[in-house]
Amino acid sequence: MRKGHMIVCDGGNGAGKTTVLKAIEVHLQAKGRELVMTREPGGTPIGEKVREILLSPDTPEMCGVTELMLFAAARAQHVRERILPAIAAGKIVVSDRFDSATVSFQHYARGLPLDLIHKINSIAIDGFKPDITIILDLDPIVGLQRVSSRGEGLDRMEQESMDFLHKARHGYLEQAKNDPAHFVVIDSSQPLEKVIIDVIHVVDRIIA
Amino acid sequence: MRKGHMIVCDGGNGAGKTTVLKAIEVHLQAKGRELVMTREPGGTPIGEKVREILLSPDTPEMCGVTELMLFAAARAQHVRERILPAIAAGKIVVSDRFDSATVSFQHYARGLPLDLIHKINSIAIDGFKPDITIILDLDPIVGLQRVSSRGEGLDRMEQESMDFLHKARHGYLEQAKNDPAHFVVIDSSQPLEKVIIDVIHVVDRIIA
Repeated sequence: MRKGHMIVCDGGNGAGKTTVLKAIEVHLQAKGRELVMTREPGGTPIGEKVREILLSPDTPEMCGVTELMLFAAARAQHVRERILPAIAAGKIVVSDRFDSATVSFQHYARGLPLDLIHKINSIAIDGFKPDITIILDLDPIVGLQRVSSRGEGLDRMEQESMDFLHKARHGYLEQAKNDPAHFVVIDSSQPLEKVIIDVIHVVDRIIA
Repeated sequence: MRKGHMIVCDGGNGAGKTTVLKAIEVHLQAKGRELVMTREPGGTPIGEKVREILLSPDTPEMCGVTELMLFAAARAQHVRERILPAIAAGKIVVSDRFDSATVSFQHYARGLPLDLIHKINSIAIDGFKPDITIILDLDPIVGLQRVSSRGEGLDRMEQESMDFLHKARHGYLEQAKNDPAHFVVIDSSQPLEKVIIDVIHVVDRIIA
């Protein structure tokens, strides 16, 4: 029987995931809940090694299918080694990205067939589904401005064209429209305190 | 139209792949053929990074599905970036291992369902098939003795139990039995010169 919960925070880069995840962490800790804060790609020692390959800006030659398989490899390990045991122990798993990102980036933006992605994803996650995926929605132009104002370099995914990032945003909104029971879209152009309050309300509804 | 060829050399560790591959290389170079010598997992910069993760002895926790996806990721890149362009240019690709190893190790030895492996493999290789896979067949006890006499450490796959390695050997023989048009088994317990002559005869038949 499923005892814990899994909450995913997703959206384009610069949409405020890091801040929102910190707010969720502080909120749930204050409530005395046992938490596992994690991220994709990554979340396990093997997954973090795969993450390095996926995000390295040195490999623009990476094929779409290769990318899909690498995300799936990291996710398969993440689910089995970290997420399922935590949920079985009654903990709340909070992840920076999960399978919704693969659908947005690899299908809607990169153009890989949706049935191929669902096939690979379903093998990786083996029937598991997060309780809720919170999409922080923001115009990618604003998102990239926020990222570059931090003075960090861009990773391989962030170096994609604006067209790619617009398609990915559309992909998040489509997924949310098609599965309203498992997705919530939050307007990330709102003032930060409003974004955080909106997110916390979603979280409280899930863990109630 | 397919112009070049692909020859795979596979089999358990210690069965003599390295020596045989070198003999094939020398033989085909002497014939003036354009060659691409490669290996799996690996064969591309991305694939070699994946290889490090796959063979690292530090990650015994790796799940079967994770392993399968990582092999597939490296293979997808290998086929698209290196093998298909070389064959289109009329070259002969000679690979140390390919998809036969995944079937032997992940299905016959590790126990993952064969249809799952075929599904993932076929996405990775997208309909491509080597002209021939040469299986160097040897009792894994003898193979491991050869490997350890070289004084090298064992990688993650070599650290598996004897039972695992015996099942993998059986898997190679089953694949060869089921697809005699694409597999040749060579008895690697024969004197080295006889093994090499047998292999060269197979190679000459393929490229004729």
